[in-house]
Amino acid sequence: MPLPGFRDFLPADWAERNYIFAKWREVARRYGFVEFDGPPLEELELYQKKSGEEIAQQLYEFVDKGGRHVALRPEMTPTLARMVAAHHRDFRKPLRWFSIPQVFRYERPQRGRLREHFQLNCDLIGEASPEADAELIALAIDILRAFGFTAQDVVVRISDREFWTEFLKSERVPEERWPDVLQAIDKSEREPREKIVETLGPLARPVLEIFEKGGESTKLRGILENLRARGVGDFAKIDVRIVRGLAYYTGTVFELFDRGGKFRAIAGGGRYDQLVAQLSDGATSLPALGFAIGDVVLGEMIRRHEVARSELERALAQDPAIDIYAVIAKPERRADALAIVQQLRDRGWRIEYPLGSMNIPKQFHAAEARGARLAILLGDEWPQVAVKDLAAGRQQLVAREQLIEYITAALP
Amino acid sequence: MPLPGFRDFLPADWAERNYIFAKWREVARRYGFVEFDGPPLEELELYQKKSGEEIAQQLYEFVDKGGRHVALRPEMTPTLARMVAAHHRDFRKPLRWFSIPQVFRYERPQRGRLREHFQLNCDLIGEASPEADAELIALAIDILRAFGFTAQDVVVRISDREFWTEFLKSERVPEERWPDVLQAIDKSEREPREKIVETLGPLARPVLEIFEKGGESTKLRGILENLRARGVGDFAKIDVRIVRGLAYYTGTVFELFDRGGKFRAIAGGGRYDQLVAQLSDGATSLPALGFAIGDVVLGEMIRRHEVARSELERALAQDPAIDIYAVIAKPERRADALAIVQQLRDRGWRIEYPLGSMNIPKQFHAAEARGARLAILLGDEWPQVAVKDLAAGRQQLVAREQLIEYITAALP
Repeated sequence: MPLPGFRDFLPADWAERNYIFAKWREVARRYGFVEFDGPPLEELELYQKKSGEEIAQQLYEFVDKGGRHVALRPEMTPTLARMVAAHHRDFRKPLRWFSIPQVFRYERPQRGRLREHFQLNCDLIGEASPEADAELIALAIDILRAFGFTAQDVVVRISDREFWTEFLKSERVPEERWPDVLQAIDKSEREPREKIVETLGPLARPVLEIFEKGGESTKLRGILENLRARGVGDFAKIDVRIVRGLAYYTGTVFELFDRGGKFRAIAGGGRYDQLVAQLSDGATSLPALGFAIGDVVLGEMIRRHEVARSELERALAQDPAIDIYAVIAKPERRADALAIVQQLRDRGWRIEYPLGSMNIPKQFHAAEARGARLAILLGDEWPQVAVKDLAAGRQQLVAREQLIEYITAALP
Repeated sequence: MPLPGFRDFLPADWAERNYIFAKWREVARRYGFVEFDGPPLEELELYQKKSGEEIAQQLYEFVDKGGRHVALRPEMTPTLARMVAAHHRDFRKPLRWFSIPQVFRYERPQRGRLREHFQLNCDLIGEASPEADAELIALAIDILRAFGFTAQDVVVRISDREFWTEFLKSERVPEERWPDVLQAIDKSEREPREKIVETLGPLARPVLEIFEKGGESTKLRGILENLRARGVGDFAKIDVRIVRGLAYYTGTVFELFDRGGKFRAIAGGGRYDQLVAQLSDGATSLPALGFAIGDVVLGEMIRRHEVARSELERALAQDPAIDIYAVIAKPERRADALAIVQQLRDRGWRIEYPLGSMNIPKQFHAAEARGARLAILLGDEWPQVAVKDLAAGRQQLVAREQLIEYITAALP
């Protein structure tokens, strides 16, 4: 058994994961994003100060054999900010970077929440304009659209940390308490009224008032207009109840939800204009924003959505393990079969043959079980080879010298 | 900075890594192999007993917040054997499975050896015949061929653990000492004579004699013949000096080297017919063999090989960040640009545009820097759009309604 909260990916699971990853990559690239990666293990310090209290408590942390305090990455943004602080001079701004890290948090495993998951992270670095906020939110929307979801299925709720920091200023909350209070406000949307009053104290009333009345800003209206110009405005709404738990967000924040409310947030992100400066001790200051979408909730949503699920199933059915199976009908043809198999593989075809001795019906059975479109049979007719189209049931004798050419023509 | 021995993959590094992974996947699939994955963190026990002393000493191990003794995976085979023991009944044998895990060992970082690397692992499970050994070795050879290496560049040295266990029996070495002695023999090939005599004691003389005289077996000759039938015999030779360090190997073992002897082993593997039974406490017994090839040594070899390096460079040059750049020549055209950008992305094109205000020459400069083939300019001629082929320097005015169609025809 794998550890609790960790997954084995058997080939069918892997294929489903790969379907998700491939779509993530395809859509991110349409936005000009390029892929990067960083280490799954980093110095503990990178997360302790930057990610916030909740993440710090859930770290897989330990002391390595060299006495270093290290942790498995709970998220990708600190690694990205570290890399950008060190290397940004080599790149034209804005950076459009994405990655698909596996991330780790020690928490109680529950539905839609494991101890590891994969995340698409997309970050836009070096552009302060809210145009960048809209571009990134549009990318998040297009990711969902690529799987077959519509504005009837999902909504992105867009908010602004500045809206809340203005509020905290007006309520005279001392700045050092902001991260904790913001995290409490973030949670309060999902908590009963009494719990909110208990946690937020005198701030509870004005916060609940804002939750009821709503709130907005010129910046948020501009982002919404930008999304409308693209034709995806119906996926988005302004909703200041979104705050986000992470400590480092500074401006626009957003989260993607299913309209049915069956799942937790599908994706989330926002601006973190101070993080690169913090991680470079002030040497480099770069405005930045990003979002992450995980594979667990998304995978569940796909499996429960009629269109999305049938798209997935269609894609998996189109990618069988092999194209061709070589049936060895006479043991003395084995060496000839090996030569043919090698030639076909060299041309890129996927091909199998029996490694041990196996009767002919069993070999055809193996061919079909593995999804082969063609079987080639080496037997009595040698040096002619019988080529059988397994779907159509047609069979044709082909001379050995013409075989490779024939197959290349027969398989599209 | 990343931790010592760990790598950041900036986009150019990632692209090079992806080139390697893509070829790995392509060749493994030609052999009918399907991809799987397992957790990077496992119970410590999985490695302590099965992998052997050397690996046990190099584990990234710790106690998690639930009190479990866990370790980052130092290799993939124990995870695979664990998964196969649990699930093999659901699959037709033999299994042809591959994976590309990142693996971790705490050792002194040095050239070609970091604390993490990625490995292609290919395993054939449920077939005891040496035909399977030959099939797997042929796959390892074809992996190298796919990068442009020939039999002049690389050689696979094939040996047999059974050859050595027969030897240990004849020398009356007690069975519980075999793993240690086999590991010592494995190392002795790379050590000075005095050191070998010191480590192996009375076994040193017969071992060195075998190293000098060579040795072979019917099984090994059969494997070589099989490889010759495929036309790749010149990549292989029998060489019993290969033993392999891992504790669990039981039969055929092999390692791939550069003929120039500049690098350590590029790849290695062998039969582990007992491991699945060990990990299922005897419930499941399945013959199996596999090999692994890492990305670090292979990457270095590619960069130093003229043909392999130019293949790599050609592939990277053919995959620019974007296809099209939208030049916004008038601020009032921004909303129109967003609509066009969205339409082109929906058709799969990679496209960027300026997020902030930027003068026109700078926008064209950005287009070229990102590798765009086309620039489209929205300005005075609106509702006509100027489409510029950046390589040819040609420009053409196209009506807005014909634009998407025109571009789809212009870009292959």
